[in-house]
Amino acid sequence: MTNRLNPDRFFSPEPGQRTLAHELYQCAEELPLVCPHGHVDLRLFADPDATFGSPADLFIIPDHYVTRMLYSQGISLESLGVPPSPLAPLSERERGSEGDHRKIWLIFCENFHLFRGTPSGIWLTDELATVFGVDEKPNASNADRLFDTISEKLASPEFSPRSLYERFNIEILCTTDAATDRLEHHQAIHQSVWNRNIRPTFRPDGVVNLDAPNWRANIDKLSEVNDIDVVDYNSFVRALELRREYFKSMGATATDHAALTPATAQLTPAEADAIFQRALKGQFEPGDAARFTAHMLMEMARMSVEDGLVMQLHPGSLRNHNHLIFQKFGLDKGADIPIQTEYTRNLLPLLNKYGNNQRLTLILFTLDETTYSRELAPLAGHYPALKLGPPWWFFDSLNGIARYFDQVMETAGIYNTTGFNDDTRAFCSIPARHDVWRRASANWLAGLVVRHIIDVDDAREMIRELAVGLAKRAYKL
Amino acid sequence: MTNRLNPDRFFSPEPGQRTLAHELYQCAEELPLVCPHGHVDLRLFADPDATFGSPADLFIIPDHYVTRMLYSQGISLESLGVPPSPLAPLSERERGSEGDHRKIWLIFCENFHLFRGTPSGIWLTDELATVFGVDEKPNASNADRLFDTISEKLASPEFSPRSLYERFNIEILCTTDAATDRLEHHQAIHQSVWNRNIRPTFRPDGVVNLDAPNWRANIDKLSEVNDIDVVDYNSFVRALELRREYFKSMGATATDHAALTPATAQLTPAEADAIFQRALKGQFEPGDAARFTAHMLMEMARMSVEDGLVMQLHPGSLRNHNHLIFQKFGLDKGADIPIQTEYTRNLLPLLNKYGNNQRLTLILFTLDETTYSRELAPLAGHYPALKLGPPWWFFDSLNGIARYFDQVMETAGIYNTTGFNDDTRAFCSIPARHDVWRRASANWLAGLVVRHIIDVDDAREMIRELAVGLAKRAYKL
Amino acid sequence: MTNRLNPDRFFSPEPGQRTLAHELYQCAEELPLVCPHGHVDLRLFADPDATFGSPADLFIIPDHYVTRMLYSQGISLESLGVPPSPLAPLSERERGSEGDHRKIWLIFCENFHLFRGTPSGIWLTDELATVFGVDEKPNASNADRLFDTISEKLASPEFSPRSLYERFNIEILCTTDAATDRLEHHQAIHQSVWNRNIRPTFRPDGVVNLDAPNWRANIDKLSEVNDIDVVDYNSFVRALELRREYFKSMGATATDHAALTPATAQLTPAEADAIFQRALKGQFEPGDAARFTAHMLMEMARMSVEDGLVMQLHPGSLRNHNHLIFQKFGLDKGADIPIQTEYTRNLLPLLNKYGNNQRLTLILFTLDETTYSRELAPLAGHYPALKLGPPWWFFDSLNGIARYFDQVMETAGIYNTTGFNDDTRAFCSIPARHDVWRRASANWLAGLVVRHIIDVDDAREMIRELAVGLAKRAYKL
Repeated sequence: MTNRLNPDRFFSPEPGQRTLAHELYQCAEELPLVCPHGHVDLRLFADPDATFGSPADLFIIPDHYVTRMLYSQGISLESLGVPPSPLAPLSERERGSEGDHRKIWLIFCENFHLFRGTPSGIWLTDELATVFGVDEKPNASNADRLFDTISEKLASPEFSPRSLYERFNIEILCTTDAATDRLEHHQAIHQSVWNRNIRPTFRPDGVVNLDAPNWRANIDKLSEVNDIDVVDYNSFVRALELRREYFKSMGATATDHAALTPATAQLTPAEADAIFQRALKGQFEPGDAARFTAHMLMEMARMSVEDGLVMQLHPGSLRNHNHLIFQKFGLDKGADIPIQTEYTRNLLPLLNKYGNNQRLTLILFTLDETTYSRELAPLAGHYPALKLGPPWWFFDSLNGIARYFDQVMETAGIYNTTGFNDDTRAFCSIPARHDVWRRASANWLAGLVVRHIIDVDDAREMIRELAVGLAKRAYKL
Repeated sequence: MTNRLNPDRFFSPEPGQRTLAHELYQCAEELPLVCPHGHVDLRLFADPDATFGSPADLFIIPDHYVTRMLYSQGISLESLGVPPSPLAPLSERERGSEGDHRKIWLIFCENFHLFRGTPSGIWLTDELATVFGVDEKPNASNADRLFDTISEKLASPEFSPRSLYERFNIEILCTTDAATDRLEHHQAIHQSVWNRNIRPTFRPDGVVNLDAPNWRANIDKLSEVNDIDVVDYNSFVRALELRREYFKSMGATATDHAALTPATAQLTPAEADAIFQRALKGQFEPGDAARFTAHMLMEMARMSVEDGLVMQLHPGSLRNHNHLIFQKFGLDKGADIPIQTEYTRNLLPLLNKYGNNQRLTLILFTLDETTYSRELAPLAGHYPALKLGPPWWFFDSLNGIARYFDQVMETAGIYNTTGFNDDTRAFCSIPARHDVWRRASANWLAGLVVRHIIDVDDAREMIRELAVGLAKRAYKL
Repeated sequence: MTNRLNPDRFFSPEPGQRTLAHELYQCAEELPLVCPHGHVDLRLFADPDATFGSPADLFIIPDHYVTRMLYSQGISLESLGVPPSPLAPLSERERGSEGDHRKIWLIFCENFHLFRGTPSGIWLTDELATVFGVDEKPNASNADRLFDTISEKLASPEFSPRSLYERFNIEILCTTDAATDRLEHHQAIHQSVWNRNIRPTFRPDGVVNLDAPNWRANIDKLSEVNDIDVVDYNSFVRALELRREYFKSMGATATDHAALTPATAQLTPAEADAIFQRALKGQFEPGDAARFTAHMLMEMARMSVEDGLVMQLHPGSLRNHNHLIFQKFGLDKGADIPIQTEYTRNLLPLLNKYGNNQRLTLILFTLDETTYSRELAPLAGHYPALKLGPPWWFFDSLNGIARYFDQVMETAGIYNTTGFNDDTRAFCSIPARHDVWRRASANWLAGLVVRHIIDVDDAREMIRELAVGLAKRAYKL
């Protein structure tokens, strides 16, 4: 514990609540990390000799939470070493991505004030202190020294990905994988001496959303990995079922689905096939992609009822809002912007067909916080199949978590929610993210106790549920 | 007062605010309960020998707040003794509803943890303690004993509905009654020695919303109770006016209207009649029902200007979202889910026609909290005819009330709001619900005083207004 | 400082946070007032002998925040001396507006309780105390005495507009001016011995929004002030460019734009000209005005890229909701009601064309708080050209500011925001409004420090940025 990490951080300043929050937090602090949804790159673990690279590789270049904030203040992504899109014109790609990592680190340190009061600021501070023992705020003066300190540590065996995995006390880690992924890195880990509880998640967006980039190529790959020809809707559905079987055999307990909206609607097999055939020929009609996605969400729910995989739905992000950035740098560059999202009517077809069926677990996420109290909590507080995931993306933050507790729990209760998931690519931020959640949970519960809404016995049970119990049960882990 | 009910419950933990909140609460604690809007079943009071039945009858079976939470966790409504819909197929209805009430109670006690941190949890705890002297948390071990204790009390004269009415210190109780209701229970009470201040409210949804279940039968009933033939739009309007007269003669001071949206629009008499004639023949055209409801809200405002009945509008609930539950168990089973609601444009026609007229009082409710600060407070802070009702349904909760105060009052001021109403079917929860409101009000006002936004003299006046004054004046009681 | 203005007002009651908030506030308390956006009537300053008139002239008659609240409780605007619309029928206009100012003041004092807990209540209390030394709450009994006290002061030279300007320590004041304004009052001030830093802002709504009241007359005026004939789209654009040049020469650094929605879309020159020609002939087609406004927002961004004027956008107010009030009293009478507003898709065309261009600064405002965390913070946290303005109108309040900080800053950081602007017509409320902002900022920062999210060194820098630094840089002042 360094100077910069106060043991009471994030708790209410009111002494009674703070003391109790601290006590409740201690019930959860040492529990192992259960990570049922995230985006960690398994190459870090499949190869026993993998390293995190430079401080810029670890903290800046791949983290769009960090680069988008710097970009918003006029710092180019090129100067941050962000690599060009694989689809970018050759001239862009030849530019390369190297940059001088020490210079990138300097830009980051000079601009560390931009992260004041943000969750990125909290995570970065925690990582620097807890993982690397750095308890100074980065700035222009100490940038070089910090770069050297961290580089030195990253080069040592104690800071290899596998070493940190142990140190972080991760019990379960789930990745997110394309339906067409052969899961080679999972296989490598399963077959290694370092056989940790790491599981894939089935994410079929690239083949299910007809407007996904490279959809046609993805379909070819789907044929290839299954060794069957996907030539029509029937063979497509069969291929998906086979992939789900394979993912299950590799340990998957869940699927994950992104969609612009949570619209659901059942097509007839003939309608579905007609749309699919047009898509194969590249002859889209307006609305085809949206209708097909809405239908496939129903199909995915059907398959989940049959094979028991937990279904996650992440709607409401308008991806690649900034076309220039997308063309130059590709996906996931901080230019995905939320839109209003409607659940009550959109989910009606799916919930009427499968919502009363306890073989289905459908976990909903949102980027539209107005739906917490208006739609999601009332839905989750009624349908047996429905549960709510934790605050997502921009809302995985102290205020975001507080709003979630205040707007969801009175109607849904905690037992219709699913605890925490870190949803991150930034492996080293995982402990910091769980710590924020656990502290925020403890503080929320302490607030209920000091106002005599629940008693402290209940609170002690609830903090353990919020930290690990709910996630383990919801994801069947 | 039992161990479980701390005298400072629900107040801020900050000692200064808490002390002041307690002091302000004491100004309101003993005031009688004014209940201008609710759904209590008057059969409990019309018959002097009526009882509340078993603990399951009182706390579980008829309370969709309770049963929907248990259902969301996979407990069937059948196992909770919820009776089948009167419209369900015979086989369903023959199943009966009895169940073993002791077993239903056990399920409830085993699952009492589901209500942690919810308003139902708060009300149930308060009722058990305050009404029945039970200060234990229900659980599997004490379920039987609690069942016996409560059953014994319920069998005693001190726990008859009329006795509890006195004990609860209810000054005025308004019910909600179909336009076609003959108000026989109101008559029975008026004519009894126990002639309390109990008033009907005119709720014409069943005849005004053409898509209401049983609309045609309701129209026949409307003819029957008025002894005039409702054969066209003119006779329909006349019949409604007569019913309003009758309700007024029975003590009504208000009407109540539910609608999917708050759309308002004036039809010509010819248009209104054409739609009504089609409806009588069962020949609906798309949009007929919505247009007719929008028109009838205008008509109801016109009648209110003429007869002085206060008009309440409760929009934004998509009823019977779960078709299976509706078919098996009927209305009001916890499957009504809110939708986004728009007031600014929807109410424009009505407010331009009647909003400047002080003979109208229109009280608005919402299930879309985003409208508090964006639409409702600005509207109520301008139009003389408009007032805002208290937080409704899912938002009749500690956080819901706090959000209402924080998002409405800065723009509307408290004098454009209407205090509290409990809106409940669960008679024994009425004191607990008012207590939560009064405590939340005291805590909000204390927060204003300790931050020097208002002074304590103002706060003492405001707490009395919030507890009873605003409601009495707004509802002309 | 009077009894009624506690030095710790608006800070958290928790002693640790309060002490720190007070300390941070002291870093900003004495800083000069920077007012980059507002609606002060420059006639008060152009004429060295101008006065504020009576207490009713100063506090009531021109302030729609005050009159709308009184109106909402059934007090007619006539009785408050609100002048009739210049467009009202002659009979209305002849009614005149005089009233007895002492009687108007009495109505205000009798109803001062309506402002309990509202920002108007806070500002009025502060103005009375700080500017006039009145530390009593207005009421029916003291109304006459207060009227005399304030009248006497207003008649003295120490209370002339220019004197108060000095006393208020205003460093920069920006007004809002029609594109067709000759800026004569600005010229008079520039040429006077009292040449303060007062700047115009270019607001072209009256010529750019084809559905603006008097659009055709405004176009004629636009021709006249430029001495060129606006006869087609090209000459219209040229005229606007010339006006911007003129405003710049008079010190303007910014433009301002109101629109019902923030829709943006590029028309071809031919399309734009066709719409403009139809408008000149009064032959509107449906959608013409909306499309033209959407196009002109793009054009204004283009011009800003070229001439460097900062662009402000204030969308989402449905103006003149109450037609009766509009007909009788005209614009800005408290009957402008917010609507839901969508930014993510509406701004996509503009941001894709100019959002990556650092020559543009686009400052967004909103009346739909749901967009803070969902749309505005993610957009501002990505696009270099985009910044967020402070809470606007109904949300320039303690709770509004707190919600803004809590919902915007975690994602956007403070450096993508633009500090405060008072946006007011009520000159004497300017210090009170800045004081509320500075206190709310100090309290927010203190809350971050006591929860160890930032340290006190960061907080001391941030309070100065929030008070003046961000506004000065964003508006290029």
